[in-house]
Amino acid sequence: MSIQQDVVAVAELARAASHGLALATRAAKDVALEAMAGSLLAHEAEILAANREDVTRAEDGGAPPNIVDRLRLTPDRVAGMAQGLRDVAGLPDPVGEVVRGSTLANGLELRQVRVPFGVVGMIYEARPNVTADAAGICLKSGNAVLLRGSSSARSSNAAIVAELREAIEAAGLDPDVVQLVPGDGHDSVKALMRARGHVDVLIPRGGAGLIRSVVEESTVPVIETGVGNCHVYVDRAADLDKALAIVLNAKTHRTSVCNAAESLLVHADLVETFVPRVVAALQEAGVTVHGDQAFQAHDGVVAATDDDHAAEYLSLDISAAVVPDLDAAIAHIRRFSSQHTEAIVTEDVAAARRFAAAVDSAAVLVNASTRFTDGGEFGFGAEIGISTQKLHARGPMGLPEMTSTKYVVTGDGHVR
Amino acid sequence: MSIQQDVVAVAELARAASHGLALATRAAKDVALEAMAGSLLAHEAEILAANREDVTRAEDGGAPPNIVDRLRLTPDRVAGMAQGLRDVAGLPDPVGEVVRGSTLANGLELRQVRVPFGVVGMIYEARPNVTADAAGICLKSGNAVLLRGSSSARSSNAAIVAELREAIEAAGLDPDVVQLVPGDGHDSVKALMRARGHVDVLIPRGGAGLIRSVVEESTVPVIETGVGNCHVYVDRAADLDKALAIVLNAKTHRTSVCNAAESLLVHADLVETFVPRVVAALQEAGVTVHGDQAFQAHDGVVAATDDDHAAEYLSLDISAAVVPDLDAAIAHIRRFSSQHTEAIVTEDVAAARRFAAAVDSAAVLVNASTRFTDGGEFGFGAEIGISTQKLHARGPMGLPEMTSTKYVVTGDGHVR
Repeated sequence: MSIQQDVVAVAELARAASHGLALATRAAKDVALEAMAGSLLAHEAEILAANREDVTRAEDGGAPPNIVDRLRLTPDRVAGMAQGLRDVAGLPDPVGEVVRGSTLANGLELRQVRVPFGVVGMIYEARPNVTADAAGICLKSGNAVLLRGSSSARSSNAAIVAELREAIEAAGLDPDVVQLVPGDGHDSVKALMRARGHVDVLIPRGGAGLIRSVVEESTVPVIETGVGNCHVYVDRAADLDKALAIVLNAKTHRTSVCNAAESLLVHADLVETFVPRVVAALQEAGVTVHGDQAFQAHDGVVAATDDDHAAEYLSLDISAAVVPDLDAAIAHIRRFSSQHTEAIVTEDVAAARRFAAAVDSAAVLVNASTRFTDGGEFGFGAEIGISTQKLHARGPMGLPEMTSTKYVVTGDGHVR
Repeated sequence: MSIQQDVVAVAELARAASHGLALATRAAKDVALEAMAGSLLAHEAEILAANREDVTRAEDGGAPPNIVDRLRLTPDRVAGMAQGLRDVAGLPDPVGEVVRGSTLANGLELRQVRVPFGVVGMIYEARPNVTADAAGICLKSGNAVLLRGSSSARSSNAAIVAELREAIEAAGLDPDVVQLVPGDGHDSVKALMRARGHVDVLIPRGGAGLIRSVVEESTVPVIETGVGNCHVYVDRAADLDKALAIVLNAKTHRTSVCNAAESLLVHADLVETFVPRVVAALQEAGVTVHGDQAFQAHDGVVAATDDDHAAEYLSLDISAAVVPDLDAAIAHIRRFSSQHTEAIVTEDVAAARRFAAAVDSAAVLVNASTRFTDGGEFGFGAEIGISTQKLHARGPMGLPEMTSTKYVVTGDGHVR
């Protein structure tokens, strides 16, 4: 069999299993999630042993330390995966939620109800915890899932999935609701992307390159996640203490995440009052400022190019520019933003209102750090990723975003 | 300039115009919609003259009468387009609707708000009324629209769009929110499908071939509409009078539409009581029944193939099969349905509940004709199409389905 046939074959097993899962009660799904958590904890030793194979292979292959760190599991991280599954068990079931309903003039009863997608494909990088997270979120939302993690994490993923499947089966559900995609190479990713009709939606999680290639090559519908060139705009009417705290938090709280700030815009009236303070504070925190001419007046600021203004650094770097007014800030954001998250710092209601209305990003923050764009922070309890597209879901995606809907219409012999 | 550059150029004009439209008040948009309606009525003569060019060209080219009929405008049809625009003016503005909102534990105020997509592309066949409908729905939902109708309707579409743009400008909005896609050939359709980043969403409206080609070739996100192989399942516990009325209505009320029934399934217990009645009634109404062996026992029933069971006839034909039980009906539907609309006729609550839960279609009807799956019938007031995909929108798409959302989060210097 070709790899395409192999992938379609597991997708068809997933499809068959998804029919039962779609009708499973919340209680049955929560029992399975608890069993999955228990199984990971009970088999921690096997999972860590499998993970050591991946880590050794990565180290032998000369992978950089940050990649090896993402790949490495510890007892704490296994416990974290188990806790994540239990947290999902504690969340409401999105399936069956009535989104809207009415009785039509002719007496027909109309209900729009949440239903699972069916079969979800996940493509992700070398973070074995995503395997358990995605399995739990998909199971709770009634979706079968095909997992295609990085081949560098293949031993870890195989061990985790084996434990999860055993627990699912013991809990009385069909284990084929959680499966690994066969194959290690790019051909197996490609086969998943071409399985239109067999897979209902693909969710890539990872770097910009991975996401771009899935968006461009996939014939299966894709939910695009995560690239963030997030801006903080410090308005003329900003409280400068709040502005300083927000810029520092957004840039330095955690640099490797998509909701970290990568670009700073400052109103021209603040060139003397705020620019020196923010440059000094950023440099103090170890940040390299890539600035325009106004910023370059300060020692240590390096010249910014358009590539800098467009960059998602994911490091202790920030691009910075002075803008003549609010509209110029909005225009700069329109030109360079990845439409993930932008923040304004201002005490001026009109400026805040205009910024929130005119900036077309998944999240717009007023007087708050960009780091708040997050499913956990938004109170969603679990997050499969942050969508930066406009169709279906935009922003942090929780359980409801992992569903479609259908209309159920009940009559009594109604005809037109 | 290449056709791709031409298309990107109009898309960029649309983008620029969309920024203002996104911020326009409902009042400003309704004034424009009323002006658009008035302009079509005031220039009926010019529009009909342009349409005569298209009709003559189609007739000279030997187009079949039903195609010419779809293409032809009359004073009544122009009045219908104008009324459609006024109806849209009467509908609530989806932009700015707060979908959900909460105050987080840390005091951050979270609101998820409806916003326009930005730039919408419409690809459709030779129905000039779609030009006005789509322009109205897009304008009200705050979206700029690029219209690519059939080249056979080019004179009509050009005349309609010219009148609409004049009215939009007179009403104080940027006329570039409604534009025709340049070019007549497939290369211009292709250019629109490849304008990723310039066009936010493409909506094809038309036959199965058109929709399939857009779904497969487009790199712009697509909302798939309309192919309907709709089933009516007559359960063992059906009221047979209701069943007969529903089957006849679903099949014969209007055959050329996507919510017409194309497939009939009957429970085995009804082979003697219902099958003869429904065959006679369908044949009386001029319908050719393509049946399985049980149906072929009746005069005039022709043998059904798998292709028949999968067909969207859009004509006075129906496929028909007897199934041993409810689960067999569900399995048949899973195999052959296009997941648009399926109906069950039954007085048995458990059967209705199971059918509604297990059938994964955009609409599931209990004791009602498939013909009710329609934006107008559902009370949405305007419909841009019926989505048969699972992402973003499923079923009849009204104004809210023509929007995305964003999160607006307001704090007071909040950091993590």
